[in-house]
Amino acid sequence: MNNKASAGNFFEDFSLGETIQHATPRTITAGDVSLYIALTGSRFLLHSSKEAAKSFGFDDLLVDNLLVFHIAFGKTVADISVNAIANLGYAEVKFGAAAYIGDTLSVQSEVIGLRENSNKKSGIVYVHSIATNQKNNVVLSWKRWVMVHKKSAQNIIAELQIPELKACLPVNDLQIASALNSETFSGKISGSNYLWDDYQIGERIDHIDGMTIDNSDHTLATKLYQNNARVHFDALYMQDTPHQQRLMYGGHVISICRALSFNGLANGLLVAAINAGTHCAPTFAGDTLYACSQVVDRWEIADKKGIAALRLKTWGIKNLPSESVITPVENQGGKQKFHPNVVLELDYTVLMPRRI
Amino acid sequence: MNNKASAGNFFEDFSLGETIQHATPRTITAGDVSLYIALTGSRFLLHSSKEAAKSFGFDDLLVDNLLVFHIAFGKTVADISVNAIANLGYAEVKFGAAAYIGDTLSVQSEVIGLRENSNKKSGIVYVHSIATNQKNNVVLSWKRWVMVHKKSAQNIIAELQIPELKACLPVNDLQIASALNSETFSGKISGSNYLWDDYQIGERIDHIDGMTIDNSDHTLATKLYQNNARVHFDALYMQDTPHQQRLMYGGHVISICRALSFNGLANGLLVAAINAGTHCAPTFAGDTLYACSQVVDRWEIADKKGIAALRLKTWGIKNLPSESVITPVENQGGKQKFHPNVVLELDYTVLMPRRI
Amino acid sequence: MNNKASAGNFFEDFSLGETIQHATPRTITAGDVSLYIALTGSRFLLHSSKEAAKSFGFDDLLVDNLLVFHIAFGKTVADISVNAIANLGYAEVKFGAAAYIGDTLSVQSEVIGLRENSNKKSGIVYVHSIATNQKNNVVLSWKRWVMVHKKSAQNIIAELQIPELKACLPVNDLQIASALNSETFSGKISGSNYLWDDYQIGERIDHIDGMTIDNSDHTLATKLYQNNARVHFDALYMQDTPHQQRLMYGGHVISICRALSFNGLANGLLVAAINAGTHCAPTFAGDTLYACSQVVDRWEIADKKGIAALRLKTWGIKNLPSESVITPVENQGGKQKFHPNVVLELDYTVLMPRRI
Repeated sequence: MNNKASAGNFFEDFSLGETIQHATPRTITAGDVSLYIALTGSRFLLHSSKEAAKSFGFDDLLVDNLLVFHIAFGKTVADISVNAIANLGYAEVKFGAAAYIGDTLSVQSEVIGLRENSNKKSGIVYVHSIATNQKNNVVLSWKRWVMVHKKSAQNIIAELQIPELKACLPVNDLQIASALNSETFSGKISGSNYLWDDYQIGERIDHIDGMTIDNSDHTLATKLYQNNARVHFDALYMQDTPHQQRLMYGGHVISICRALSFNGLANGLLVAAINAGTHCAPTFAGDTLYACSQVVDRWEIADKKGIAALRLKTWGIKNLPSESVITPVENQGGKQKFHPNVVLELDYTVLMPRRI
Repeated sequence: MNNKASAGNFFEDFSLGETIQHATPRTITAGDVSLYIALTGSRFLLHSSKEAAKSFGFDDLLVDNLLVFHIAFGKTVADISVNAIANLGYAEVKFGAAAYIGDTLSVQSEVIGLRENSNKKSGIVYVHSIATNQKNNVVLSWKRWVMVHKKSAQNIIAELQIPELKACLPVNDLQIASALNSETFSGKISGSNYLWDDYQIGERIDHIDGMTIDNSDHTLATKLYQNNARVHFDALYMQDTPHQQRLMYGGHVISICRALSFNGLANGLLVAAINAGTHCAPTFAGDTLYACSQVVDRWEIADKKGIAALRLKTWGIKNLPSESVITPVENQGGKQKFHPNVVLELDYTVLMPRRI
Repeated sequence: MNNKASAGNFFEDFSLGETIQHATPRTITAGDVSLYIALTGSRFLLHSSKEAAKSFGFDDLLVDNLLVFHIAFGKTVADISVNAIANLGYAEVKFGAAAYIGDTLSVQSEVIGLRENSNKKSGIVYVHSIATNQKNNVVLSWKRWVMVHKKSAQNIIAELQIPELKACLPVNDLQIASALNSETFSGKISGSNYLWDDYQIGERIDHIDGMTIDNSDHTLATKLYQNNARVHFDALYMQDTPHQQRLMYGGHVISICRALSFNGLANGLLVAAINAGTHCAPTFAGDTLYACSQVVDRWEIADKKGIAALRLKTWGIKNLPSESVITPVENQGGKQKFHPNVVLELDYTVLMPRRI
């Protein structure tokens, strides 16, 4: 009799165009919202104050976009990446309908690309994942690609295809809640008087604060998201890997850096899109994270007077204050070379009030 | 003046037939539900998705039976076992009315047995505990027995009595919600297509995944349950015991093993009863837990077409993948001998959808 | 271009009489309530049971006064004390309207005092902070004073003033909910039969239980309160300080000691005021906290038959059971000298049912 537990999918298990419904749908509770604050220290206005969210046109306290991302991403792990050799990247992460406490997220993925590695022992699977709420509105969609083992180098894969991915979601592709307005906005309660108008392309912000992360922090976060990737939880198994210890979920690093970015970017109230993310070095318990950001682009939004968009890059840096890292990344012969303490480069777009 | 703080009850403080009302009643909140997921990584359907719970006939998201058990159990500690030499066992743990967010649990215990040890220095107290909700419906009842010190070997105990305990709650004793139906059930969202029909008596499932537990995890869990047993919290006190460190609450081990069992038993949607539990070795922070299960029995349920019951044994194993433990327990001359890495044997009954 | 992140305010940045509105307002959720229990193990009745709170005349489960204090205090850190050399003290901490799940707290501070140090390099800022709910009712008000750096010793400060602070809030200044009654009170569910009538001035209670605190516990708590003081989070930065490690937020120590005080003071249902707090030694991860209390005063409350007030001092003691500390503090030539293991002296007033 076969063991009814699953060791995850192999490259041969995926077929182009197939849709995978992920278990288990998840109702977001008030507990998730508070835990997210406890796990990250995040202080952004619309995720902290129900009254503020309502004054911006929303129905209730907004669930943090990144919390939505982690829960939705977690759902896909058992089917897509629990058996992955490497999580290679993600793109076109686009937030849709606002998520509220009480919403139930269901997630499915379509296989949009398959590429075999030249060694025939592994391949890359590209999926387009969509999280919908109980009203069937899309709350989040994203693409990602992971490298997975083949069962056998002999197996021949019928259909292969590499999808085209956008390097950046253009501002017109962003989904901006029609109700969203900033007419009652006050920098006094958001934590900063710097508005969209005050940020210049190329400008750098060092976020000053540092956050040391312990094993219980990152494992509690990752369990909360029902992400069951072994590398984050099984210290005994990890002892025999080059890391020799549990690896921190990269999404937790993103959330910590976003929370640190409050000091300097407090009015980046909502994440509208993640264009790309590079996890260039592993993060472990005991590491202290710092962050700095650079303004990559700034966009007006059609039909919105009081809200505009900033495209940012935020770098997460371990065990070195960001002020000491003059150049987080440099171009060496066409290749990006990251400073050795940089663990994350996140390219994303935030919405920010502007002067009317 | 006597110190108003209590050092707990001694054997002489209990009298046969007495009923103890435990402090303090506890309202279950959405925070408890999310914390339980964060602390265990549990992914079972009816505790994750409000929509799924409703489609099964329930009013709302179901509070995990084990969370209910831990909260109810925690209430009894200050009166029954804070002063215990050993928690010896529990039996006839039977779940009743469904528990929902917002319910308030009150717990009382009746002393149903007293047995003095031959050394006259300690005795065993048997209690029957009942947790009711604010409508006075029984949510959980269970029996357990603990060894406690006597104040003095000279004291003579008037009434002694050993209760009879069932080795297993028969299927007809289980309380199955009349509304419960599985007509809309889909393995796509529950995490597995294996239904009750697919499990055979004697079949073993190795749950593959491992979970390393840190001090903050298990102490947060145990504090959440308002369980105040000193052995879990006071590291200084524990230094002078043979363990030399804080002992993990056995209930947390149960919850971790149940969460691990999702991989292979995802459709064991609800725990209906715990027949017995043996905590055969201590668990400490830093230990990695693995689990495997065996199907002990399978029962149809009268008047239920789409739901049936599986009696399972699940073994929790520390610091060794379950695949390496061929025989978790063996019978040696009438006595059970556990593999040295086994920390838990849980004998329990789950409800699972079956093919209609 | 200046860095848009803030390094905090200096002495010259404060002016007498100015009002600072703190970011960001915070909605209290059910998650906060459960996390507070998980982080402290608190078991007080009115914060555990919705039904009990209602039977006392409240609308719903009461949010713990100390949780309210920590959230409100956390709001002030970025503006008042993130840059502080030392948090010197607080006084006249007075709880007002009951706080419920769903309430949104907004906090503002008025600068009520400025005193320059004789070295001209730093000064002391006194603020009066007020937390209001969404109905603009005062939930909490308190005064505190912190030492902050001057930008330059040369800068001359125009206005200096030292405010008068009450050593103890008299009973008539306390705000007692008019609905509050204890007619249905039962010691069986509160955890103790000792009522206000049973406590004598000068009486000491040793709370017996101990609680070891780990890094994730205190940092999760402090992040939950959105308190961003660097000393609690940035282990790398702290390595170069005399502490050489992260410092535990003093408020977490208060909460742990209050939770420990349940054993002996279970009927001290509500904290009505904090008169003073001295954090006489730092607390670090790994420390085990014990507590003992002394009754300082006992007051009847006008127009309340079933409720009265106790003024208490509770001492938090690290790494030594409180029974071993006969004299937590002694008067040496007019100065208070604390036992070396004492980390906290909290002078506060609780409300307790009395015999009718």
